[in-house]
Amino acid sequence: MAKTNAGRFFEDYTVGETIHHAVPRTVKMGERALYHMLYPARHALYSSDQFAQSCGLPFSPLDDMIAFHIVFGKTVPDVSLNAVANLGYAQGRWLAPVWPGDTLRSQSEVIGLKQNSNGRTGVVYVRTTGLNQHDEAVLEYVRWVMVRKRNVDAPAPETVVPDLPDALSADQLSIPKGLDFTNYDFTLAGEPHRWADYEIGEKIDHVDGVTVEEAEHMMATRLWQNTAKVHFDTSARPDGSRLIYGGHVISMARALSFNGLANAQIVAGLNGGAHANPCLSGDTIRAWSEVLDKAETSAPGVGAIRLRLVATKGGDAFALRGEDGKYLPEVLLDLDYWALMPL
Amino acid sequence: MAKTNAGRFFEDYTVGETIHHAVPRTVKMGERALYHMLYPARHALYSSDQFAQSCGLPFSPLDDMIAFHIVFGKTVPDVSLNAVANLGYAQGRWLAPVWPGDTLRSQSEVIGLKQNSNGRTGVVYVRTTGLNQHDEAVLEYVRWVMVRKRNVDAPAPETVVPDLPDALSADQLSIPKGLDFTNYDFTLAGEPHRWADYEIGEKIDHVDGVTVEEAEHMMATRLWQNTAKVHFDTSARPDGSRLIYGGHVISMARALSFNGLANAQIVAGLNGGAHANPCLSGDTIRAWSEVLDKAETSAPGVGAIRLRLVATKGGDAFALRGEDGKYLPEVLLDLDYWALMPL
Amino acid sequence: MAKTNAGRFFEDYTVGETIHHAVPRTVKMGERALYHMLYPARHALYSSDQFAQSCGLPFSPLDDMIAFHIVFGKTVPDVSLNAVANLGYAQGRWLAPVWPGDTLRSQSEVIGLKQNSNGRTGVVYVRTTGLNQHDEAVLEYVRWVMVRKRNVDAPAPETVVPDLPDALSADQLSIPKGLDFTNYDFTLAGEPHRWADYEIGEKIDHVDGVTVEEAEHMMATRLWQNTAKVHFDTSARPDGSRLIYGGHVISMARALSFNGLANAQIVAGLNGGAHANPCLSGDTIRAWSEVLDKAETSAPGVGAIRLRLVATKGGDAFALRGEDGKYLPEVLLDLDYWALMPL
Repeated sequence: MAKTNAGRFFEDYTVGETIHHAVPRTVKMGERALYHMLYPARHALYSSDQFAQSCGLPFSPLDDMIAFHIVFGKTVPDVSLNAVANLGYAQGRWLAPVWPGDTLRSQSEVIGLKQNSNGRTGVVYVRTTGLNQHDEAVLEYVRWVMVRKRNVDAPAPETVVPDLPDALSADQLSIPKGLDFTNYDFTLAGEPHRWADYEIGEKIDHVDGVTVEEAEHMMATRLWQNTAKVHFDTSARPDGSRLIYGGHVISMARALSFNGLANAQIVAGLNGGAHANPCLSGDTIRAWSEVLDKAETSAPGVGAIRLRLVATKGGDAFALRGEDGKYLPEVLLDLDYWALMPL
Repeated sequence: MAKTNAGRFFEDYTVGETIHHAVPRTVKMGERALYHMLYPARHALYSSDQFAQSCGLPFSPLDDMIAFHIVFGKTVPDVSLNAVANLGYAQGRWLAPVWPGDTLRSQSEVIGLKQNSNGRTGVVYVRTTGLNQHDEAVLEYVRWVMVRKRNVDAPAPETVVPDLPDALSADQLSIPKGLDFTNYDFTLAGEPHRWADYEIGEKIDHVDGVTVEEAEHMMATRLWQNTAKVHFDTSARPDGSRLIYGGHVISMARALSFNGLANAQIVAGLNGGAHANPCLSGDTIRAWSEVLDKAETSAPGVGAIRLRLVATKGGDAFALRGEDGKYLPEVLLDLDYWALMPL
Repeated sequence: MAKTNAGRFFEDYTVGETIHHAVPRTVKMGERALYHMLYPARHALYSSDQFAQSCGLPFSPLDDMIAFHIVFGKTVPDVSLNAVANLGYAQGRWLAPVWPGDTLRSQSEVIGLKQNSNGRTGVVYVRTTGLNQHDEAVLEYVRWVMVRKRNVDAPAPETVVPDLPDALSADQLSIPKGLDFTNYDFTLAGEPHRWADYEIGEKIDHVDGVTVEEAEHMMATRLWQNTAKVHFDTSARPDGSRLIYGGHVISMARALSFNGLANAQIVAGLNGGAHANPCLSGDTIRAWSEVLDKAETSAPGVGAIRLRLVATKGGDAFALRGEDGKYLPEVLLDLDYWALMPL
């Protein structure tokens, strides 16, 4: 009996089944220190216990993207080891803060299957949930990936494509218990701009750039126990390059967006996202944002802002698609998310 | 008086003397987070407090190799600063788990000396013990190194070569107090294969590869306060390359062996090991294992498995030695160890 | 309204104003583990809780340079984003240890302004204070930088140049409460040399070298939330190189100085410092020290030693300036500091 995990192929998934992903992980302040080392992350709520307390939280939670990466990383051996492409995200909601000392695990429900017309691959839709040691959901999101078939002659499953709205509405967002921005300290947070200062349609060039290195992206990706070969093994791709984990680009761009969005403290919802082009070592990642929507919330002093976050490796700020409607070659990421900020 | 440490030479050692190595180190969860960043380590017992508790431990200990690296690193300024080669290991036993908050220090007893026939070098055998803040031994192992003489005319010491068995027997292994695998969760651990599923002689190709970078191996080696020049200084070797610390290869290979040996949770004994060829930045490390022996233990649900762990930088899986009996040039490591796994 | 921070220009500073820098930071053992990974730091007081307790402290504080880097990093967006050069340091005093769990923030008072004769730049002098969550000062130092003017036609401010003595006197140093070196364990600390063994004028070549990599210096600099573009973005300088943060060189040289100054445990004062030449990835950093002064202190068993710490990227040990009086091209750093060591 082969002992190693060859990964699942398209015909190994059944709509309705739940996959329990392996290797729960206890996270503490060490992971937070590493996040600050790997990304230029400066949002004050995730940097200072006292700042978090002034916002009604017991202390500073781990960065929302740490939760995302850990939950996501655990799904890789079961969902994307034989994936050809990561096609999209939808309906992502951060449901509870992750505190130092929490233990996270992941499970995924298969919610859709669609064989491609070439008969060699298919699209698998999963709804992944991250749970803490109290079996409380801390994060959920839908992801769909294109997966190879083991046997091209295997019959196609019944096509099931889930109905996925383009975006969450603001009232679907979960707001951390106790959150209160009425005593928010804009000086300590780093910028004076409040929710009311942002207009729908406004675009912000985050100015700064970071040239990325092999050692960094591999360490980041390993930290999340994400084992996809293409990130680590130069022999895994024909050109000998190591593909940078798309989540590394997300975290880098989100951290760069501090410069102009320092008060968009909390990532609360993920409406969608595309990894438009591969990112490789030596690329200089830049970011710009566009305000897509705004909404009030039920929490004191807290507004919701829907943002497009675009990461590029150069080119003109605010350029996204060519005349053919396709992403420009320098665009790395097009992410659509909801953040919480002081009114 | 020269203030800097020039290291000991062969004639500076006396059989029976004990060397107290410097710089005790308090280790906490930060070191664990770093271990997960530097290596693709996924064994559940070292990742989750809850998983460790389900196995009878109070919480998750630090990875066994963290203990090894820290204890080893402290010996470098006294044992291997003028070493020509690290020749072997034997009789390694992990005697107690290392918990976050423990403080480790090292001491070594010189147990053997043998001048080489060239008169310029000699072999030093030491038994190194790692102790925690309660003066409890957590690890011991024998290592022998070839060390330069300061003065080739110094008389040869009496030859003392310790009797070192090829391997520990399973009943010499120390089992962590309370360890109980009878409620072991194979799903959370990541693989269904139990002790009974492995056969003596069975070989496992761990499939994955990691291309290593200068920044990573230097950070790992520094983390263990190992200061050997050849790992850090491009002017220390004629070809300008930095030699990767052999322990980095051990940890990388052990982590890669998760894929096929996810349930070989605990490293309990080190029977022997050879760093067959140097590892350099840019090499892609792969690993395969061979089951050498199996034994039951006195702990509930716990079996012992003796494994050969081979790290390579390419070549055919399971290839080890050429027709001349020498290690193939692509073989980096040949390690012989005992692990504990669920029956 | 532009949302991003373009940084302050020379005409934006007023003598007497206080700038409250953003993003407080809670630091714990994770940051300490990272410091040990990034630098070959081995001073026992900052490595072991038990060693620190034997010196009269409640447990091991964070490395003094961690405090410096974090306090310094917070000033970058307000002080040096448009700086042409970091000209000097003076009057630096570590006022209280930083304990795991402390939250640090920074503020700077503008204490001097002097427009340069070219009319395009000026020198800004700030006295920066690092404060913990109890509003207790943990560090203060004066720094002066050359900053561009936004508008060359803006009128020059009145020239104010603070009176900055060449060095602190030993009685100005703050000694950690409870510090007592009368039971100091020289074996565990790693070297036998006590304060009495060092002579004014003595020079020590610290022997070891470390070749530095892009990934390492970027991660170190990010860890301190220092966002200066030149460290991260290959497009920020005409030659495409990333300039290594001067503080990275300070920490590397201080760590290398363990070999010969293992007992110079505590950095208590910063008299001055010059970043003599830029450091780039691939440089091999070496260090040497010169004893400049010695003084007794009021604490039991504790002496103060004033040291010049020079970092180089090669060249002869102890070489500093050419015949023209200028720093030799291989000199990276010339730092003048006070340390505390056992009598």
